[in-house]
Amino acid sequence: MSHAVRFELIKRCAQSGARLGVLHTPHGDIPTPIYMPVGTQATVKAMTSREMHEIGTHILLSNTYHLHLRPGEKLVEKAGGLHKFMDWNKPILTDSGGFQVFSLADMRKITEDGVTFRSHLDGSSLFMSPESNVDIQQALGADIAMVLDVCSAYPCSEEDAREAMHRTHRWALRAKRAHMRPDQSLFGIVQGAFSKKLRIESVKTLSDMDFAGLGIGGLSVGEPKDIMYDILDAIQHHLPEDKPRYLMGVGTADCLLEGVLRGIDMFDCVLATRVARNGTALTRTGRLVVRNAQYAEDFAPIEEGCDCYACTHHTRAYIRHLIKANEITGARLVTIHNLRFLLRLMEEVRDAILHDRLLDYRREFYQQFDPSAAFNRGPEV
Amino acid sequence: MSHAVRFELIKRCAQSGARLGVLHTPHGDIPTPIYMPVGTQATVKAMTSREMHEIGTHILLSNTYHLHLRPGEKLVEKAGGLHKFMDWNKPILTDSGGFQVFSLADMRKITEDGVTFRSHLDGSSLFMSPESNVDIQQALGADIAMVLDVCSAYPCSEEDAREAMHRTHRWALRAKRAHMRPDQSLFGIVQGAFSKKLRIESVKTLSDMDFAGLGIGGLSVGEPKDIMYDILDAIQHHLPEDKPRYLMGVGTADCLLEGVLRGIDMFDCVLATRVARNGTALTRTGRLVVRNAQYAEDFAPIEEGCDCYACTHHTRAYIRHLIKANEITGARLVTIHNLRFLLRLMEEVRDAILHDRLLDYRREFYQQFDPSAAFNRGPEV
Repeated sequence: MSHAVRFELIKRCAQSGARLGVLHTPHGDIPTPIYMPVGTQATVKAMTSREMHEIGTHILLSNTYHLHLRPGEKLVEKAGGLHKFMDWNKPILTDSGGFQVFSLADMRKITEDGVTFRSHLDGSSLFMSPESNVDIQQALGADIAMVLDVCSAYPCSEEDAREAMHRTHRWALRAKRAHMRPDQSLFGIVQGAFSKKLRIESVKTLSDMDFAGLGIGGLSVGEPKDIMYDILDAIQHHLPEDKPRYLMGVGTADCLLEGVLRGIDMFDCVLATRVARNGTALTRTGRLVVRNAQYAEDFAPIEEGCDCYACTHHTRAYIRHLIKANEITGARLVTIHNLRFLLRLMEEVRDAILHDRLLDYRREFYQQFDPSAAFNRGPEV
Repeated sequence: MSHAVRFELIKRCAQSGARLGVLHTPHGDIPTPIYMPVGTQATVKAMTSREMHEIGTHILLSNTYHLHLRPGEKLVEKAGGLHKFMDWNKPILTDSGGFQVFSLADMRKITEDGVTFRSHLDGSSLFMSPESNVDIQQALGADIAMVLDVCSAYPCSEEDAREAMHRTHRWALRAKRAHMRPDQSLFGIVQGAFSKKLRIESVKTLSDMDFAGLGIGGLSVGEPKDIMYDILDAIQHHLPEDKPRYLMGVGTADCLLEGVLRGIDMFDCVLATRVARNGTALTRTGRLVVRNAQYAEDFAPIEEGCDCYACTHHTRAYIRHLIKANEITGARLVTIHNLRFLLRLMEEVRDAILHDRLLDYRREFYQQFDPSAAFNRGPEV
């Protein structure tokens, strides 16, 4: 069938095999590979839409679980949909909230029908099925919706992983049947925890369902990075060439780069915005904890050569002062830097693929990067 | 003597007598009457310098007490002064911190020498004299510094008010003698609490000292607005014509307008930014509590006709959602509106003076304004 969102593979990097593409959506074209900043509650924390444009954002992510609880999809629909509600006229992807139900809800019960959970806001009991989840996402009106999936923990038994995966597949089919909105595309979500065999089975099953794209879920839930890379290595040649591949909840510089090298087209993560509000900046070397005393009299920018507003206008000493004084402006400046850092990294990655030099780029990247200063991936909650 | 900051009276409104002027400063000219947004800790809360430019700010206020405690004037001096530290190349005024010592410090002891107080941050004991206060402000390097004054409470006895006033005068002279920085001007501060007689005496005493301008302190500390207006009425014809008059800590729309009608040229107040962070917008009618349930499905802007970013891009429903969800972006949008609201009000006031119609403007203003929805003045702390 034809999809509202369509992937076009421009080329593969001759050096690395990494994919360069374009994702065509109802709200415009997106270059891939791409990092998607996260606006969980219909705003990227501390940022305005105008600023998101300015730092070079092509697509935003928002969250079905959070928006369902507050302000509710009915209000968003009344406002004319999520794009209009938050004044963002470029593409949006809404995650289904499967991961949030898994990680946030005080109590949950998963049956074949769906999931019953307690709201983290008021403790009320709520039920979500694959179908009602699709209904919510259709009301929100993002360009890309995700199926409701069942996440496994790390570690988990093969038995549990298989069960969660099979339910995810059955739910994916139900979601697909329920999905009607013509100007929105639905992505399936690959599960299978840390079993390569299950992951490959999941990829094949979901590929047959002809989703507009595939999310790879259930990774970056606490496992070492190498385990995640192994899974990506195992599945990459089973993934359909003509569909976009979205590695969910992954968002450190090294993981983005390693993901692209393993055929991934899309990423999202709250890490960049979350650590920013605590005064930690993402940098080429891994991180810079701006609030540390060593930067008290440091009049250099967060990162030399960065073109963001924070780095072109303000010093570490000033931003540290703002963070220490609990000034919102401090959180804002580090947020701007962190988002621009990842967006710019992906601009460079796309350029490196275009010029068939992504392995060279990786070598240069690791010359600066200090793994001991790096983050593990921060899951999106 | 010649001052680094010099006031030029352009004209008086033929209808009301209100003053239209220009304040010449080392960092450029400021039109008066003017509202000065408050950047207590070297940032206007939730705003960047760029945004402050964009909403039409001509001069910012910062605070000696707060900056002395954190990050310390030595750091600011090392950074090249407050303008450079916070990336603001227009004029800055630093308040002396007399009011903060009066209202914030856990414990304070005032002697003829100066004031000993406990830091509100770490409880450490600190001493500030009129001379050391000037030293701090010279290190900060604002265009305008204020003398350290002694505030009285409301209500207070004539005896206490006289004593505080006389000490304020003696301290003003000491501050003036200590002040050496040629690219900075020092303003005196009129005290005298709620006694017209004392206030007039204070104006005359300070006028003789030839400060570059006069602050009117110790008002908006809890007294009814009418009492403040009476004091302003009583002193206005005793104030020097050729010096700017700054009504300290006053910042609601009606008080600004009434102040201008009584010859005031400069105002500051944290009210606009403080209430914004709690979801309350300043409007022509007094206030609009955006977080209230009645705006949940209201897709109008905060205020029709407002030219600020929040009003031209976002709805009450969206901003309410952000405020309810504790999103920084919500606080930011209301802050932008509130500051632009007061800055724009003063643009209109200046225009009304220019066209000799400020009484007409006042009549139109009160046709919309609901005093029961208005704020009392919020003192700057």
